[in-house]
Amino acid sequence: MNDLIGDVVRLALEEDLGPGGDVTSEAIFGPHDLAKAFVVSRESLVVAGLDVAARVYAALDARVHFRPLCADGDQREAGQRLAEVAGPARGLWAGERTALNFLQRLSGIATLTRAFAKAIEGTGCRLLDTRKTSPGHRLLDKAAVRAGGGRNHRMGLFDGILIKDNHIAAAGSLAEAVTRARAGAHALLRIEVEVDSLAQLEEAMGLPVDIVLLDNMSIADLRLAVERRSVRKPGLLLEASGGVRLENVRAIAETGVDFISAGVLTHGARAVDIGLDAE
Amino acid sequence: MNDLIGDVVRLALEEDLGPGGDVTSEAIFGPHDLAKAFVVSRESLVVAGLDVAARVYAALDARVHFRPLCADGDQREAGQRLAEVAGPARGLWAGERTALNFLQRLSGIATLTRAFAKAIEGTGCRLLDTRKTSPGHRLLDKAAVRAGGGRNHRMGLFDGILIKDNHIAAAGSLAEAVTRARAGAHALLRIEVEVDSLAQLEEAMGLPVDIVLLDNMSIADLRLAVERRSVRKPGLLLEASGGVRLENVRAIAETGVDFISAGVLTHGARAVDIGLDAE
Amino acid sequence: MNDLIGDVVRLALEEDLGPGGDVTSEAIFGPHDLAKAFVVSRESLVVAGLDVAARVYAALDARVHFRPLCADGDQREAGQRLAEVAGPARGLWAGERTALNFLQRLSGIATLTRAFAKAIEGTGCRLLDTRKTSPGHRLLDKAAVRAGGGRNHRMGLFDGILIKDNHIAAAGSLAEAVTRARAGAHALLRIEVEVDSLAQLEEAMGLPVDIVLLDNMSIADLRLAVERRSVRKPGLLLEASGGVRLENVRAIAETGVDFISAGVLTHGARAVDIGLDAE
Amino acid sequence: MNDLIGDVVRLALEEDLGPGGDVTSEAIFGPHDLAKAFVVSRESLVVAGLDVAARVYAALDARVHFRPLCADGDQREAGQRLAEVAGPARGLWAGERTALNFLQRLSGIATLTRAFAKAIEGTGCRLLDTRKTSPGHRLLDKAAVRAGGGRNHRMGLFDGILIKDNHIAAAGSLAEAVTRARAGAHALLRIEVEVDSLAQLEEAMGLPVDIVLLDNMSIADLRLAVERRSVRKPGLLLEASGGVRLENVRAIAETGVDFISAGVLTHGARAVDIGLDAE
Amino acid sequence: MNDLIGDVVRLALEEDLGPGGDVTSEAIFGPHDLAKAFVVSRESLVVAGLDVAARVYAALDARVHFRPLCADGDQREAGQRLAEVAGPARGLWAGERTALNFLQRLSGIATLTRAFAKAIEGTGCRLLDTRKTSPGHRLLDKAAVRAGGGRNHRMGLFDGILIKDNHIAAAGSLAEAVTRARAGAHALLRIEVEVDSLAQLEEAMGLPVDIVLLDNMSIADLRLAVERRSVRKPGLLLEASGGVRLENVRAIAETGVDFISAGVLTHGARAVDIGLDAE
Amino acid sequence: MNDLIGDVVRLALEEDLGPGGDVTSEAIFGPHDLAKAFVVSRESLVVAGLDVAARVYAALDARVHFRPLCADGDQREAGQRLAEVAGPARGLWAGERTALNFLQRLSGIATLTRAFAKAIEGTGCRLLDTRKTSPGHRLLDKAAVRAGGGRNHRMGLFDGILIKDNHIAAAGSLAEAVTRARAGAHALLRIEVEVDSLAQLEEAMGLPVDIVLLDNMSIADLRLAVERRSVRKPGLLLEASGGVRLENVRAIAETGVDFISAGVLTHGARAVDIGLDAE
Repeated sequence: MNDLIGDVVRLALEEDLGPGGDVTSEAIFGPHDLAKAFVVSRESLVVAGLDVAARVYAALDARVHFRPLCADGDQREAGQRLAEVAGPARGLWAGERTALNFLQRLSGIATLTRAFAKAIEGTGCRLLDTRKTSPGHRLLDKAAVRAGGGRNHRMGLFDGILIKDNHIAAAGSLAEAVTRARAGAHALLRIEVEVDSLAQLEEAMGLPVDIVLLDNMSIADLRLAVERRSVRKPGLLLEASGGVRLENVRAIAETGVDFISAGVLTHGARAVDIGLDAE
Repeated sequence: MNDLIGDVVRLALEEDLGPGGDVTSEAIFGPHDLAKAFVVSRESLVVAGLDVAARVYAALDARVHFRPLCADGDQREAGQRLAEVAGPARGLWAGERTALNFLQRLSGIATLTRAFAKAIEGTGCRLLDTRKTSPGHRLLDKAAVRAGGGRNHRMGLFDGILIKDNHIAAAGSLAEAVTRARAGAHALLRIEVEVDSLAQLEEAMGLPVDIVLLDNMSIADLRLAVERRSVRKPGLLLEASGGVRLENVRAIAETGVDFISAGVLTHGARAVDIGLDAE
Repeated sequence: MNDLIGDVVRLALEEDLGPGGDVTSEAIFGPHDLAKAFVVSRESLVVAGLDVAARVYAALDARVHFRPLCADGDQREAGQRLAEVAGPARGLWAGERTALNFLQRLSGIATLTRAFAKAIEGTGCRLLDTRKTSPGHRLLDKAAVRAGGGRNHRMGLFDGILIKDNHIAAAGSLAEAVTRARAGAHALLRIEVEVDSLAQLEEAMGLPVDIVLLDNMSIADLRLAVERRSVRKPGLLLEASGGVRLENVRAIAETGVDFISAGVLTHGARAVDIGLDAE
Repeated sequence: MNDLIGDVVRLALEEDLGPGGDVTSEAIFGPHDLAKAFVVSRESLVVAGLDVAARVYAALDARVHFRPLCADGDQREAGQRLAEVAGPARGLWAGERTALNFLQRLSGIATLTRAFAKAIEGTGCRLLDTRKTSPGHRLLDKAAVRAGGGRNHRMGLFDGILIKDNHIAAAGSLAEAVTRARAGAHALLRIEVEVDSLAQLEEAMGLPVDIVLLDNMSIADLRLAVERRSVRKPGLLLEASGGVRLENVRAIAETGVDFISAGVLTHGARAVDIGLDAE
Repeated sequence: MNDLIGDVVRLALEEDLGPGGDVTSEAIFGPHDLAKAFVVSRESLVVAGLDVAARVYAALDARVHFRPLCADGDQREAGQRLAEVAGPARGLWAGERTALNFLQRLSGIATLTRAFAKAIEGTGCRLLDTRKTSPGHRLLDKAAVRAGGGRNHRMGLFDGILIKDNHIAAAGSLAEAVTRARAGAHALLRIEVEVDSLAQLEEAMGLPVDIVLLDNMSIADLRLAVERRSVRKPGLLLEASGGVRLENVRAIAETGVDFISAGVLTHGARAVDIGLDAE
Repeated sequence: MNDLIGDVVRLALEEDLGPGGDVTSEAIFGPHDLAKAFVVSRESLVVAGLDVAARVYAALDARVHFRPLCADGDQREAGQRLAEVAGPARGLWAGERTALNFLQRLSGIATLTRAFAKAIEGTGCRLLDTRKTSPGHRLLDKAAVRAGGGRNHRMGLFDGILIKDNHIAAAGSLAEAVTRARAGAHALLRIEVEVDSLAQLEEAMGLPVDIVLLDNMSIADLRLAVERRSVRKPGLLLEASGGVRLENVRAIAETGVDFISAGVLTHGARAVDIGLDAE
């Protein structure tokens, strides 16, 4: 099986340890020295990445035991313990930075997503991520979005059809692009089309399209789009995207679109502060 | 040879393309359709990551030619072209997101680093990165720091000795930790010790230590540290770290420390806005 | 990128050549001996696999040039040349068996698929493959089906939702299974449900389901299914599967179902006879 | 060690699961749901591939336990249980198709081989496979031949010398080809020569050749070949090949040849019907 | 294809370069600095390993051109140029040690083998290597033996049958061991048996054995072995092994054995002195 | 993590076992036959490589248990048992040669190193290895040097700066080379410079250099070098290299240099005699 998470874990350990390993810890700790430490939150955050932190230790030295003290998606405040790590001191400290690098970034994504998810609570609109994830971290970033309360858009280019302007230009028309997509892709894939005007939306509603992505439209236009959809093609799903921020996300949701997708959830999250404290 | 950058490029393509590839582009473009597009900056930024973007296309479809129109480290404004991409349309658009994900994040690091580097210009103090890089992107993130005008700290745990509190605790004393490190590591590695008080600095100055990392010290204490070093051990290098921000970095540099290391350069940078526009 | 075809080519060469290579050819041909040969059909067939045969030689010895003399999907009779192979004799003959093993099996699939496709010509029903492909050959087998005139069902478990009896049993009801699937999967995936009775079909038609797979139903029941669909849910797609043979495929198609999927296309095809003749 | 079977198992899972896994089962089963099922024969067959089916589950999710209820080589009738599979439902059903794809094809080879082996029972002639195996499945296909009662010819090009017409042409004569092979290969390898006429056999008998492959000869000629061998070179082994079918295999065996090799055992076997039934 | 030589080249570069590369050369040479150097013999030697040295540079930096000025197997004296290396200075010097480590060790094997080969010249006896090669260098070490004028024994455990005392003990008797080996292995493999007494040789001559390895026998016994063979089984091949040194190898060869195998050729060779001199 | 030792173990097994495995043992031992054997020293030696021998068996067949009866670094005489190996006979004997090839070579290095280390005992000078290790065996060879009582120089080109003549030539002067190295490399790496005359040493002492390697100097010059260092730059470390032999190593050490590095420890060691005796 294609273990993409295992691959990025190995890569992260490889770049930090090289052929020679942690020369400081090798020199200072004996091979049988044991240690115990706690992963501690240093600010308010939503946890994500506990599994991959555990895999860092499993790959580095399986005798180091990483025991989560909470679950992905949990809210934690500064000073709370997130996990216990115990085992040979050399391995425990050699893996510290790599495990924390994952936890800090993924919890950062979950924390930001939670804020967006709360902002639209009650509207019925669903918050989606995008493909603007850190290269090599797609599965992890998307799991962190789920931990924060968002939902996932397609995983990649292989499991969803999304027709954009360059496809339309190549096909000559939106109608032709949709025809080609329907003919070329297998029957279990829906077709989504990206439009940037109400006129394009009207055109899309005349075609066998399942979802329309409304790109960078004003709140007013989004409202009109929802209205026209109700009249002409009630089963059609609408997704708003472009310029989504904490300040405007609720207003967008209240237009009645089915989905809001926001690249900022993954490419705009900052790493939150998490440390590893020796007992 | 251990090609870590090639590995993360392959991983990024793999997670986006899966076994099935870009189903939309496969359906819409013919196998012989050609396309040409430009990587365009959508805001003011410092460029980084051109090489890895080129490698994305080399790995995905070697017939797609990625030609840089500037160099890593160049400042560019919104609307300027950074590179030209030309070749088979399927490959060109299939690689768009992956190439941009790299460019946006790495240019984000370079842009932030440039701001820090300018802030301390003329002080003689050098700006360093840390190991708080995105897992699997160590070499790329560190190259982006260099593009922005910073310098690199050690690459990983394997090519530098840095004694921290947990090492000192295990050894029983700083002196013993230094002794073990000197005995265990090969002669071409220097020894750096992390301290968080002037008292610890004094202790370190009595030992065969090459660099002292002053962790989370006040500006006043950093000044005192520099003074005492001048008196007692002029050859000793001093590095300040902890809580470094754009607002305080110049004040820290003006204390006379040799280096400032800042995790925020890599873990706090946001992705800058870069697009791929069809000609 | 995840090069599954490259992987199976390397595996095939590895098992045939081992660490020692083709000991006979190494002993008999000199390193600079050249040879030229033709891939020749020994029976009437539809060609498939030319690309992978070319990749066998590219992986084995890039100086051996494999030049197709026809295209995948072409019908050829006994004695016709399908490709020319030329280059160092050692590599040319070392790759013979591996290249032919691919060509014979894939052309076998294309040939059988062509027979099925012709049998249903004019009915408007589309012929689909299944996941019953040779392990490790999924992409190749599915390309051979296309070469023969069939179309592909989903690539694998990752790019399409197909709810079967064990899913329904676990969920407690078909309705609950569909609810979970719609909630858990991303919005760009359609939902297909497998049913084996008209009663189940009725139930499925009351749910947000896009396709129904009618498993092992009689021709009479398939006709009834098509009728009821027309009345109750005209947009619903119907797929017939189970026991599909050349003898009954047209009758099935004439019931009015949208798709017929047949595992036999890939797991029941025999290798056709193709040889490599020295010039 | 070079784990070719592990490689093809990983490849098979990779192509079916992609980066995203079994989206249907992930959505419907909970992470702790358990399931139990039985691998059941749906027709009369000779079992092969139990080990590789177990490895599919070991690679996919080691918590799914695959317990064989019979052994490779056993004859089983429709409705009999071949193995029990139990563990987490997600993994169990995600691996179903891949495990069955292996079992159906390998049991198909074993079943066909058993029929050939029975047909020549009592003649003293041994049934051999060829290198016409499914690419990437060489070790598995050859083990299935043994399970069916056949024996293996050389594993690949690396562990046996077989001189064919193109080698003879390159060397200028059979004698020269044999000389080169004997000089170039190490002493522990025998030399086999392929001939297609009695005249060539006579020539081969004058050379230091251990085995002669009689290609596509008539029954009458095979008998003559056996006779002449008895007279002139009793220690020489004779192998018949080409056009071997169930209908003529006994007649070939009764000519007195030592071996019959039949590509049809591996490239002509159809997949037998085997299912996975939930308890 | 299974590229074992490529694997060991990559491994050798990986252990020398780590993730960080040649930090000295990176710091001192510019990216566009060019250099030219010559591989120079510093003592009298037989050359081997030119191909793998070229592959070191191809893997490290394909712009560095390694041009052999002689061929494997050539005798060269101190001060003679063996190859020219030219290209970017960083890559040229980064690969120096790895390329030389291969050349020095492999030329050492070729040089020692040449001495043994000359010692037995004219006796008709052939000099063989063993499996006592440097782990991971089997193909290279065996090619160096050929360059020195020796011949190869089997490549590994997979392409030749050699029955030793532990096999005989397990089978209960030499006869039974031979029976099992003949039944279990395919027909293209010969059978060799290791014996350490003339009595065992007699027993072996009564069995279907192709070669006998006479282990650690005295010159006198070897002579007797050859005599008895001539009388009783003229086609049997005899191989002497054990304690073979330059001082006794001719005496052993003159006993009339067909082969002498000597582990010392590969495990006892010292690295010869070869340098890389800048132009 | 980058498991270089695992990689060379897999490579060594792969080259010996190929796709087909140990055909002799497979034919003669049953799958359930058990065996027990002892690794026995056949001459006086210092043990090294027990861990990698254990890994050979772990990789080949984890049911074969390798239990060390001594530790790396122990002195053992002819006939003493070094380890016990027990488990399935097929795996035990299939791994014999690979495990012994590692043990014989690594114990050879440890044994030779011990002789050198004893020769300089009491002088305060430390014995170092070089990068002249067997390609792919760097970590193992260096561990064997430590087992013998030596210490390691840098691991590779990535974790230490060593300026040689070609660097000086490219930079234009030693001073410029040191400046570039200091500017380009990170602060935790020391700088070593190779010189071959006292004049060059004087120049180096005027620069920010940490260690000087005195290449191929006479005993007299080495003594002068030590004297001048004491006078002018007492903190500078001196390393002697070139032409180090057991006969002259003590004289070199007595000059007062801090380190002696000797390539002969790894490239000049012969394999010691170790066998595997069935119980």
